[in-house]
Amino acid sequence: MEYSAIGIDLGGTNLKGTIIAKSGEGRHLTRIPTEAEKGGAQVMQNILQLIERLIEKEGSTDNILGVGIGTPGFVSEDGTVDGAENLPGWKGTRLYDPIMEKFNLKAVGANDATVAALAEARFGAGRGVRNMILLTLGTGIGGGIVMDHKLFTGTFGMAGELGHIIVETNGLQCNCGLKGCVERYSSATGHVTLAKQFCAETPADQQTPFTKFVTEDPDNVSSRTIYQFVEQNDPVALKVHETASDMLGRLVGIICNTFSPDRIILGGGVAKSGKIITDTVGKYAAQNCWPMIWEKCDLVIAELSEDAGVLGAGAMVFDAFEV
Amino acid sequence: MEYSAIGIDLGGTNLKGTIIAKSGEGRHLTRIPTEAEKGGAQVMQNILQLIERLIEKEGSTDNILGVGIGTPGFVSEDGTVDGAENLPGWKGTRLYDPIMEKFNLKAVGANDATVAALAEARFGAGRGVRNMILLTLGTGIGGGIVMDHKLFTGTFGMAGELGHIIVETNGLQCNCGLKGCVERYSSATGHVTLAKQFCAETPADQQTPFTKFVTEDPDNVSSRTIYQFVEQNDPVALKVHETASDMLGRLVGIICNTFSPDRIILGGGVAKSGKIITDTVGKYAAQNCWPMIWEKCDLVIAELSEDAGVLGAGAMVFDAFEV
Repeated sequence: MEYSAIGIDLGGTNLKGTIIAKSGEGRHLTRIPTEAEKGGAQVMQNILQLIERLIEKEGSTDNILGVGIGTPGFVSEDGTVDGAENLPGWKGTRLYDPIMEKFNLKAVGANDATVAALAEARFGAGRGVRNMILLTLGTGIGGGIVMDHKLFTGTFGMAGELGHIIVETNGLQCNCGLKGCVERYSSATGHVTLAKQFCAETPADQQTPFTKFVTEDPDNVSSRTIYQFVEQNDPVALKVHETASDMLGRLVGIICNTFSPDRIILGGGVAKSGKIITDTVGKYAAQNCWPMIWEKCDLVIAELSEDAGVLGAGAMVFDAFEV
Repeated sequence: MEYSAIGIDLGGTNLKGTIIAKSGEGRHLTRIPTEAEKGGAQVMQNILQLIERLIEKEGSTDNILGVGIGTPGFVSEDGTVDGAENLPGWKGTRLYDPIMEKFNLKAVGANDATVAALAEARFGAGRGVRNMILLTLGTGIGGGIVMDHKLFTGTFGMAGELGHIIVETNGLQCNCGLKGCVERYSSATGHVTLAKQFCAETPADQQTPFTKFVTEDPDNVSSRTIYQFVEQNDPVALKVHETASDMLGRLVGIICNTFSPDRIILGGGVAKSGKIITDTVGKYAAQNCWPMIWEKCDLVIAELSEDAGVLGAGAMVFDAFEV
């Protein structure tokens, strides 16, 4: 029998769900509000409601192998959420038991960045690649590790906290308490921080179109607007790009010396700027690891975007429960 | 039938070989000179001779599952040695073919630090541990990664180059071309470098027993002698200890955020100083990764010493060829 899986992607604003075949083809894509502000118990109710809607659209659970869930934070082996400080009351939620009770379906969960890595490995820029790492460059930096074609999440589901690897001695203070974490520089948020810092440091007689834009409209500075000025060779925007790429290159170097992966994939909003990112990050990465390891590693842009979460969540189900 | 394996440990001076049971019990331990100075072809001849002697002692190859070899450098999937710059003519050697031709035995090889990690996982401080990393603190720093109870060597056998992870921005120049590699500070060689540097920087009126020892007998400074002065609370020796531990703690923090391992094991000559090393490195590691990941990770001293190489080499054979 051709089984399918339910994939759920838990975001701060929306819950997304789909039913996917092993090939990655999805059907019945459905979105409902997460209602994170109502607390963890309501979020779990909403997840159950989303699963119910998907099953209604499918007609039955006969061909459903199980439910996969990508969530902020970590998921322990027994399905308990840890971390996820941004979702009030979500930590401590037991993910698997209510799904088994209500639908008689097995469930498997993992950190959302980890789940996205599995999606790229199965259906995206990592297809057929044995050892790969996905770095999701968004508000923060998330990491997902696929080794020997399988997701590696560590014993407690906490592996891949690559955004909080320190790349600069006594660097910028991070929310996590450490200093010099790569996500302070190379995430979308990091780009904005660097842009404001470098603009503030630019002398009055060296202002550029970019510094004027940042000064006049600081709330509209984003990684995307920064790269519009990078394309115009604005020197201050270029400095943001070089600094952020240097720091990310250091992380890529550390990843190379650690895993010697076949491929490192950059995803998330920042990666939408494309080749200029991989080219410059690659230049710095080569200065931060063994040349013979770097030679064997590709650095590429992710292929999946918004759908990575639900696809990866579904793919986890096949890995976990297919016999 | 109870199979055994041949384990070979290739060192710069000696070749060691043994026959081991799956339980880790060894027999017929044999040492012959490596004769590295005679070139790679002679080293390979010596390995074949060592295997022959072990088979003679055993009486036959009937119960021998295969041959495992730990070597400096890397071993690709087809058994070709790469790296290993310190052994002239060894790079490019094909390890597996001559063993199959001469003895009709399968062979499997890996980097020596990697092999030692498997030995700790099976027979030493990592017994029963699902995810663990061994850091071998010797002349340099080698890394070995055991995940889900299996050795992880990467697609090209090059994973685990943890000694060349950069832990200090614009730090000390390393032989590898990078700056600030952890092995420049926290290996036995790194300890000696720091000792000489800190002694040279100590003003004349602040000399200590340790600075006098280093000045009078610089050739006899070693990690071991440094820790003799650390035990006497010599302030300059303590500064070496704190600096080396800080740098190693940064690496341990990076390893934690990456793998969230159950256990990190410190081996090699430096680790013989024991608890003072794990205590101080642990203090710094806690400042370099997520607290909830660090809480779940043990930092301990290796249990096997000189025998780790042959035992791990033999253990690889069971993992690779046992059906």
